Amino acid sequence: MKRIIVLYTVLIGAFFAYFLNYHFREAAPTGWESGGLRGEIDEKYVMVTFQAGIDYWKSCLKGFEDAAQQLNVSVEYRGATHYDVNEQIKVLEQVIARKPAGIALSAIDPIALTDTINKAVDAGIPVVLFDSGAENSKAYSFLATDNYNAGVTAARKMGELLGGKGKVAVVTQPNQQNHQERTKGFKETIAAEFPGLEVVAVLDGKGDQAVSRDAVLEALKKHPDLGGVFATEANGGVGIGDAVVYYAQNKNIKIISFDTDLGTLDLVKQGVISATLAQGTWNMGYWSLLQLFHLHHMIAQDAGGAASGSGPVVPPFTDTGITIVTKENVDQFYAR
Amino acid sequence: MKRIIVLYTVLIGAFFAYFLNYHFREAAPTGWESGGLRGEIDEKYVMVTFQAGIDYWKSCLKGFEDAAQQLNVSVEYRGATHYDVNEQIKVLEQVIARKPAGIALSAIDPIALTDTINKAVDAGIPVVLFDSGAENSKAYSFLATDNYNAGVTAARKMGELLGGKGKVAVVTQPNQQNHQERTKGFKETIAAEFPGLEVVAVLDGKGDQAVSRDAVLEALKKHPDLGGVFATEANGGVGIGDAVVYYAQNKNIKIISFDTDLGTLDLVKQGVISATLAQGTWNMGYWSLLQLFHLHHMIAQDAGGAASGSGPVVPPFTDTGITIVTKENVDQFYAR
Repeated sequence: MKRIIVLYTVLIGAFFAYFLNYHFREAAPTGWESGGLRGEIDEKYVMVTFQAGIDYWKSCLKGFEDAAQQLNVSVEYRGATHYDVNEQIKVLEQVIARKPAGIALSAIDPIALTDTINKAVDAGIPVVLFDSGAENSKAYSFLATDNYNAGVTAARKMGELLGGKGKVAVVTQPNQQNHQERTKGFKETIAAEFPGLEVVAVLDGKGDQAVSRDAVLEALKKHPDLGGVFATEANGGVGIGDAVVYYAQNKNIKIISFDTDLGTLDLVKQGVISATLAQGTWNMGYWSLLQLFHLHHMIAQDAGGAASGSGPVVPPFTDTGITIVTKENVDQFYAR
Repeated sequence: MKRIIVLYTVLIGAFFAYFLNYHFREAAPTGWESGGLRGEIDEKYVMVTFQAGIDYWKSCLKGFEDAAQQLNVSVEYRGATHYDVNEQIKVLEQVIARKPAGIALSAIDPIALTDTINKAVDAGIPVVLFDSGAENSKAYSFLATDNYNAGVTAARKMGELLGGKGKVAVVTQPNQQNHQERTKGFKETIAAEFPGLEVVAVLDGKGDQAVSRDAVLEALKKHPDLGGVFATEANGGVGIGDAVVYYAQNKNIKIISFDTDLGTLDLVKQGVISATLAQGTWNMGYWSLLQLFHLHHMIAQDAGGAASGSGPVVPPFTDTGITIVTKENVDQFYAR
């Protein structure tokens, strides 16, 4: 009988603990209480890129993973190994077959990938694009650097570095749209805001270090008083640094480059490259997953009249931003 | 004794229920378990606009409230009553004094509001701007319609409505930047994609119904074969509808207008206005709060190296999108 009373007491205690736990969870100070934005661990979102090995994706994936941890969902990374359209299509097909909760894709080619993207969306799998888009696909949104604005930022930094006076050149890849936009933003801003600056040459660096170096050496023959060069991509920046330091022996030329791979960061640290533009890669991954989560859970649609029907259920374009990297803040970019 | 056994059984059941409930919550298949993106009910975010009475903000606020419910936080709306710079500054000062968790602001004037915005940010209160920005302030981001893209969308719709052939005019407010961008996107797209279309006039409607009507009537004297008009704001659209139907007695002119106030929707329903462009106002409110939540909780900063330091901690610009409203889908926009 004594043992039954002890057991009885323990069980009453447990029952009250259970009851109180239940009670407190209901006793929020307002009429509603939300569980927050929180998914299930078996809800899997996949990031798909091309050229899986390169450093550039690391921070994108870190953002994607950080968002997964916040939202209590799972993520996976699948990259085509090479810079190869058919390989990426194949990888994307494989991912679709496993019916994930959503796909964040960086498209190697805006046209070639469109059918496969549409296939995923038609099958009810939300797709958002990051870094490299596919304008006419059915993907819900695109999260990337606003390249025109990046050019604007580069122009203003160049104006500051040169005190608003002198001749400048651009080394770019004239056939690629993102590079065209960077060049346009740069040239239009120089023209509009810096009457003392003149863009004397737009050179084709072909995304190659040696070609970019030679193009600048050639331009220096025509314009020995060149004050600055803006490289719209990383290999160009390193090539120009090479040209300026070892060939032209003129360290006074101000170089603004793009991205934050190791070679570029080292030249920033040495002071050869004055500034490089870091893209908001963490933001690309993080906000891609946040949008996919909203699409998977149909949050905008469920919110009633507001966003229902044909309205955009997530913002169609997100500018993930640019950070200017100089000697002063270069160290923190080695960590990325 | 029989009653004790019944009670005993019930309590054992309750205990196991409690135990199992506890057990299952811990039994996530991975190492970590996140509480989701979830704040506290006493965490208050404030939306501040000008001209508090107008319909336009309703859907912005609905998005803001919907996000609050998802995130388990509180929101409040504070609007200056009139279209008055000093009144909005005063309202914003009052809001800052109460130290909210964050402020989403639509700035009546990009220059005049800058000092007060900076004061909030310097005091550690995150500010994001929506709908109407303040480019040189310390606000973390801007969420709004990409007006150039809205003009592109209007041009493509006009091309479709006119079968790619004819004369078109624009009625706009030439001194306001958002309207300049809409006009630019429209004109550049017509020029680039529709060789059969010609923009014969860009008229100043002064944001007024009667002025817009008279401007179009004047243009019709010069161009009696005008095929279409794009109004970059709502009063213009209604005025043009007026001109076309009651004065010019020419219902064949295709009108594309902007926004979704009642007068515009009625004319869409009647077929006088062929299409109007609805802005993604719900997205503005929803994603403003999501960004403020991330800023308040320093989520990007806490994610470690990835977005630390001087990187943009939220995306600096979000295009909240455009929806084309026609007779077919106009009904759902009355509900907003």
